[in-house]
Amino acid sequence: MKILVINCGSSSLKYQLIDMENEGVLAIGLCERIGIAGSKLTHKSEGNEDMVVEKEMPNHTVAIKLVLDALVDPKYGVIKDTSEISAVGHRVLHAGTIYSDSIVVNEDVKKVIRDCFDLGPLHNPANLMGIEACEEAVPGVPNVAVFDTSFGMGMPDKAGMYAIPHEYYEKYSIRRYGFHGTSHKFVSNEALTYCDLDHKNGKVIVCHLGNGASISASIGGRCVDTSMGLTPLEGLIMGTRSGDIDPAVVQFICNKEGKSVNEVLDILNKKSGILGMSGGISSDFRDVQKAQGEGNHLADIAIQAFIYRVAKYIGSYVAAMNGVDAIVFTAGVGENDKPIRGAVCEYLGYLGISIDAEANKARGKRVMISTPESKVKVCVIPTNEELAIARETKALV
Amino acid sequence: MKILVINCGSSSLKYQLIDMENEGVLAIGLCERIGIAGSKLTHKSEGNEDMVVEKEMPNHTVAIKLVLDALVDPKYGVIKDTSEISAVGHRVLHAGTIYSDSIVVNEDVKKVIRDCFDLGPLHNPANLMGIEACEEAVPGVPNVAVFDTSFGMGMPDKAGMYAIPHEYYEKYSIRRYGFHGTSHKFVSNEALTYCDLDHKNGKVIVCHLGNGASISASIGGRCVDTSMGLTPLEGLIMGTRSGDIDPAVVQFICNKEGKSVNEVLDILNKKSGILGMSGGISSDFRDVQKAQGEGNHLADIAIQAFIYRVAKYIGSYVAAMNGVDAIVFTAGVGENDKPIRGAVCEYLGYLGISIDAEANKARGKRVMISTPESKVKVCVIPTNEELAIARETKALV
Repeated sequence: MKILVINCGSSSLKYQLIDMENEGVLAIGLCERIGIAGSKLTHKSEGNEDMVVEKEMPNHTVAIKLVLDALVDPKYGVIKDTSEISAVGHRVLHAGTIYSDSIVVNEDVKKVIRDCFDLGPLHNPANLMGIEACEEAVPGVPNVAVFDTSFGMGMPDKAGMYAIPHEYYEKYSIRRYGFHGTSHKFVSNEALTYCDLDHKNGKVIVCHLGNGASISASIGGRCVDTSMGLTPLEGLIMGTRSGDIDPAVVQFICNKEGKSVNEVLDILNKKSGILGMSGGISSDFRDVQKAQGEGNHLADIAIQAFIYRVAKYIGSYVAAMNGVDAIVFTAGVGENDKPIRGAVCEYLGYLGISIDAEANKARGKRVMISTPESKVKVCVIPTNEELAIARETKALV
Repeated sequence: MKILVINCGSSSLKYQLIDMENEGVLAIGLCERIGIAGSKLTHKSEGNEDMVVEKEMPNHTVAIKLVLDALVDPKYGVIKDTSEISAVGHRVLHAGTIYSDSIVVNEDVKKVIRDCFDLGPLHNPANLMGIEACEEAVPGVPNVAVFDTSFGMGMPDKAGMYAIPHEYYEKYSIRRYGFHGTSHKFVSNEALTYCDLDHKNGKVIVCHLGNGASISASIGGRCVDTSMGLTPLEGLIMGTRSGDIDPAVVQFICNKEGKSVNEVLDILNKKSGILGMSGGISSDFRDVQKAQGEGNHLADIAIQAFIYRVAKYIGSYVAAMNGVDAIVFTAGVGENDKPIRGAVCEYLGYLGISIDAEANKARGKRVMISTPESKVKVCVIPTNEELAIARETKALV
């Protein structure tokens, strides 16, 4: 069984074709500048040089057709006919309060995705375009929606509801959803096996640390809490996002700078985080760490604050679960940035955690970084959202 | 030495006269409706019935004069002459980034209090009025400003700075300050002694749970972190305040309801918390708990969420300090509400905490509620901000 995994942005489309017999990636690619002059498809498959197609893509339907052409291309292709594609798995941002699991797409599902445009204004419209493009390009092949919010919808109300007037939940579905759900679900389930934990009761904290960053707590793979909220702005300090702040900061900046609330939220999403905190050095952790190493005071505060907040979230989730069995680092920073993993764990000695400095030198691979004596297992498990989407899709079709 | 402690609101003035020989309260009182028709002074002193003065108080100077008259009143008074007052200690909300300790008031200090009107728009103007009224009414008697932000200013930058563009700190002093500082400082220092901890390295978490609620972590009495931020809105769920939310919630409500950011912040401050979350039942914990007991679902979520957030903050502060020696409950709910203390501690078994259910029945008094075997001491220490202000004042004059 071969499954095509699609992740549509407003002007982009990422894809992977995965052979579910061995979970191997047959092809991987990206369409850029969809709907903008200068569209381009880059397609990679094992043993071939990259295939680059520079052709106008006025919409996602045209893009999908070019992707299918590439997949069956005599030279660069990996299948003979699109009929070999058993199903298409789509990353969809938001299902609101309606779905807490992946689902085979039908008209009802499309309506829910459309009804959630407000909650995911940048992503949901693009995700729906991707689904409809597939319906047109490969009719009859089932599409599966894998929601980024599904995992977080498992949170109990005490973690998921805001302490605001209840009418705003009823009228506008304002609550905490959590994002990166596909990654958190995948990594926390992998951790249960890798750390040899009870699959029903194992307590796992996953730190998904990348340019976007979030953290989750789960028991037996079921979400207990997660740090992103109504939107991906809440929680940890990120590359450009502020994470948690006093809501009054929004008001203060609006009033002091004469800006609208939308302008201020744009600043909190795009010009804050380690970029803003470091005085504008960069949203890339490596750049800010370099400046820190050169003695830049603001860079130092930004990196320290990032680490501190991760450690505090871990601490709070240990309380949420009354204990923890395994702590897992994943995503770009979590998989590769040894100093940050080490610094986070330095806060956690009280849990009986001890880190093997040699093992913690590993980058980008699955590795146990705690010592055998450590009372909590600490490890790195690279995330793989595409594989997770393919597995969910396979399970449903 | 007798010290008068003053806490001025915009239309109120609370006072206590404290004899520092034995730290006993000689008199306590309240002026209400200052600047509003129907002003009233209520004055209490030991062995006397209440003295009530219904006289117009167009401003705080008139109110202070009536307070002094009451203190020397032949029947209800407790001193013969105002010259017996050695100093006046004032609760002042905000010192911005300037003072991290109490200070004897001079023109420079008054300028700082005035410069911080923006940061404490409701309190700082009233606090300054109280100081100026005392300067006029008892000239020559030193006034001491005890700032609610002093304690929190001890936070390291990693805890105190927001991940927003650094220019907003430089231009507008937007950072985390923390409030209830006088209470946190007093209770955490009392805890070092009461729990027999190392006065330099003892790790203490103070849960100040009242209608306003905040929590602090301190090592040897020095603040490590505290939950309120730029304003008292951040942190725990409170009677009417939301505490932490995704900042995007502000934008979402603004846009959906067509409200200004100031209107939404007003809702987050005055109509949220357990009041809003419970669907409007009450801002009083007892009322919401009663509804919870009667099976009201929203009341149940509100109380559960309040407890859960306190437990998570405790967990995060244990990580912040890499351990904890004592956890202290104080203020209205913390001192009196046994079920909430017990429910918070149920999350904390992983710390080796065990609670003595019998001891935990105590209300409003200093008591150790953990068992002798508990690895962390858990206790109740009633807060006493007036005494704390009097002590700070005494130390400075």
